[in-house]
Amino acid sequence: MSDRYRKGIETLEIMNKDAIKILMESLDDTAPDLANFVIKFAYGEVYTRKALDLKSREIATVAALTAMGNAPEQLKDHINGALNVGCSREEIVEVIIQMTLYAGFPAAINGIMAAKEVFKKLDEK
Amino acid sequence: MSDRYRKGIETLEIMNKDAIKILMESLDDTAPDLANFVIKFAYGEVYTRKALDLKSREIATVAALTAMGNAPEQLKDHINGALNVGCSREEIVEVIIQMTLYAGFPAAINGIMAAKEVFKKLDEK
Amino acid sequence: MSDRYRKGIETLEIMNKDAIKILMESLDDTAPDLANFVIKFAYGEVYTRKALDLKSREIATVAALTAMGNAPEQLKDHINGALNVGCSREEIVEVIIQMTLYAGFPAAINGIMAAKEVFKKLDEK
Amino acid sequence: MSDRYRKGIETLEIMNKDAIKILMESLDDTAPDLANFVIKFAYGEVYTRKALDLKSREIATVAALTAMGNAPEQLKDHINGALNVGCSREEIVEVIIQMTLYAGFPAAINGIMAAKEVFKKLDEK
Amino acid sequence: MSDRYRKGIETLEIMNKDAIKILMESLDDTAPDLANFVIKFAYGEVYTRKALDLKSREIATVAALTAMGNAPEQLKDHINGALNVGCSREEIVEVIIQMTLYAGFPAAINGIMAAKEVFKKLDEK
Amino acid sequence: MSDRYRKGIETLEIMNKDAIKILMESLDDTAPDLANFVIKFAYGEVYTRKALDLKSREIATVAALTAMGNAPEQLKDHINGALNVGCSREEIVEVIIQMTLYAGFPAAINGIMAAKEVFKKLDEK
Repeated sequence: MSDRYRKGIETLEIMNKDAIKILMESLDDTAPDLANFVIKFAYGEVYTRKALDLKSREIATVAALTAMGNAPEQLKDHINGALNVGCSREEIVEVIIQMTLYAGFPAAINGIMAAKEVFKKLDEK
Repeated sequence: MSDRYRKGIETLEIMNKDAIKILMESLDDTAPDLANFVIKFAYGEVYTRKALDLKSREIATVAALTAMGNAPEQLKDHINGALNVGCSREEIVEVIIQMTLYAGFPAAINGIMAAKEVFKKLDEK
Repeated sequence: MSDRYRKGIETLEIMNKDAIKILMESLDDTAPDLANFVIKFAYGEVYTRKALDLKSREIATVAALTAMGNAPEQLKDHINGALNVGCSREEIVEVIIQMTLYAGFPAAINGIMAAKEVFKKLDEK
Repeated sequence: MSDRYRKGIETLEIMNKDAIKILMESLDDTAPDLANFVIKFAYGEVYTRKALDLKSREIATVAALTAMGNAPEQLKDHINGALNVGCSREEIVEVIIQMTLYAGFPAAINGIMAAKEVFKKLDEK
Repeated sequence: MSDRYRKGIETLEIMNKDAIKILMESLDDTAPDLANFVIKFAYGEVYTRKALDLKSREIATVAALTAMGNAPEQLKDHINGALNVGCSREEIVEVIIQMTLYAGFPAAINGIMAAKEVFKKLDEK
Repeated sequence: MSDRYRKGIETLEIMNKDAIKILMESLDDTAPDLANFVIKFAYGEVYTRKALDLKSREIATVAALTAMGNAPEQLKDHINGALNVGCSREEIVEVIIQMTLYAGFPAAINGIMAAKEVFKKLDEK
């Protein structure tokens, strides 16, 4: 197990353990290497860099995924991740509302729907 | 002068005084109402909400504009804004590098070029 | 109730009464302020401006949402809205077909699928 | 000369004679067939369909190109086209402002900058 | 039956017979002309050009639809098309993984999910 | 020098030596790590995978960058890269023309303009 892989798993333990397990399982038969790149590059090399705290990182990711609007499942994963690294629900909602200004109302509304779903699942646990 | 307009100007005094002046002048003959909407809605109603601090707001905006890649001038304005509300250059660069993961390398590289230009102008002052 | 809010509700009564009710209910527990911004800013301040008739406004919105392709639910709302302010089904279909030229065939085909669903629901009423 | 080509040229005579001449010249050495497709398919087959008047077609195109934000030159061509088929400057500006709601402020501001440039060139003639 | 239409049908017989039949049926009551444009322009005029073999064409299309991320159904059609014109599953997966670099991980992961679904359906036949 | 870095440089020697040198220099003072990620991850880990030949890889990248339309400089780099790994000018032009179908005419026209510029520079050498 490479150093990058180990660091990636460590970061994911903090950020979103469940999401990566589901991702690894779902990519396992078609593109297992893509799951490896997510762990080694995204979480092992990028998210571990010291220049930015994990809370700010998740604010950035929730903002970008809301604005781009092309990946609702990953947005939900990162809303969960944001909660896991110290964002409040109110802060997450606020980041999404702000995207109205840069990507329009439909993108922001769809982002809120993703947050609503995440919050509801957590409340039902 | 409405309350929203006044609040918007106050927020902009903190965030990016120069940018809005340039924007108002450039929209003045074609669509002055759009400058008003920026001041009253974006800065008077959205950015003034209490749920998120201005530093986190600019991290979100720099992330989204880097990822979307369709507005290099506004990205530069918000990199300046981010510096004005407490982000370090290193943090801004890091937000942009992270966008590699969500919008690809070209979007991130173009974001860094925008940051480079902003930093250079500040250093020349 | 502010003047903007009242005007927004009035515009929505004409354009798409049902859509906003559903939107308000679905945002109510997570981001009620976003529904307020839709009513006050989008419908109270922008759609009420005199410079463009509502039919032309809906043509513009159906075109943009088809081309962007990131908000199928809102596209359906605006296809309904377009019908409510005087667009014929044939005109709406034509706007969507034209988007082939600016956003490609898949975006246009997905737009037609949205229109088909809206028309079918209306025919079943 | 095929029927489609002839019809395309006729439509372009009304809509934007200059734009297509410039386009044909600029594509001539690298991809002349792409200019042919623009004339034969876009203007000969799509824009000539009876279901929508040319003014509404240009409103749709200006809206989409503003919202997508990836083709400032073509947006300027279609702002000129919109003026040629009966849109007022005020109407064009209004379509662009409305895009704030669906694609965010930066996209709308960039659209206004395109309109400003077109209007200025016309005033200098 | 025009020459373009006949050529389009011939190309589609090779590339993806089933997809176009489903498309024609689903567009039949709302926008049959759009299905005609797909056959005559996309498959009759563009895909039949000699300058590029069909395998390279499908690599290009799978890449673009993965990167744009706005048309999962059409991506699945073109993954099937790619298989029909000589791409291996491994090559298709690789094109999609490569899109990580240009459109980010979520777009690539969603592309793999589309491929997985196509492959599974073929294996169940 | 890590194995990945060495492999990345080797791949870039074949594909586009000049582009990476320029990129490294331009990122050097602001985000040198981003240039490292390009070399190590993009060219060292992804482009070196055996499942797809470099010519097919560049067809995929030219297609995606044309369709996305957000990175004209990188598109030009990859048009050069495509030529370096065996694509003919005619094939590159054809990939770009095909993008008309998936991203619309303006994206394809802008792609051709990028190709034209690359070809012209090579002819002047």
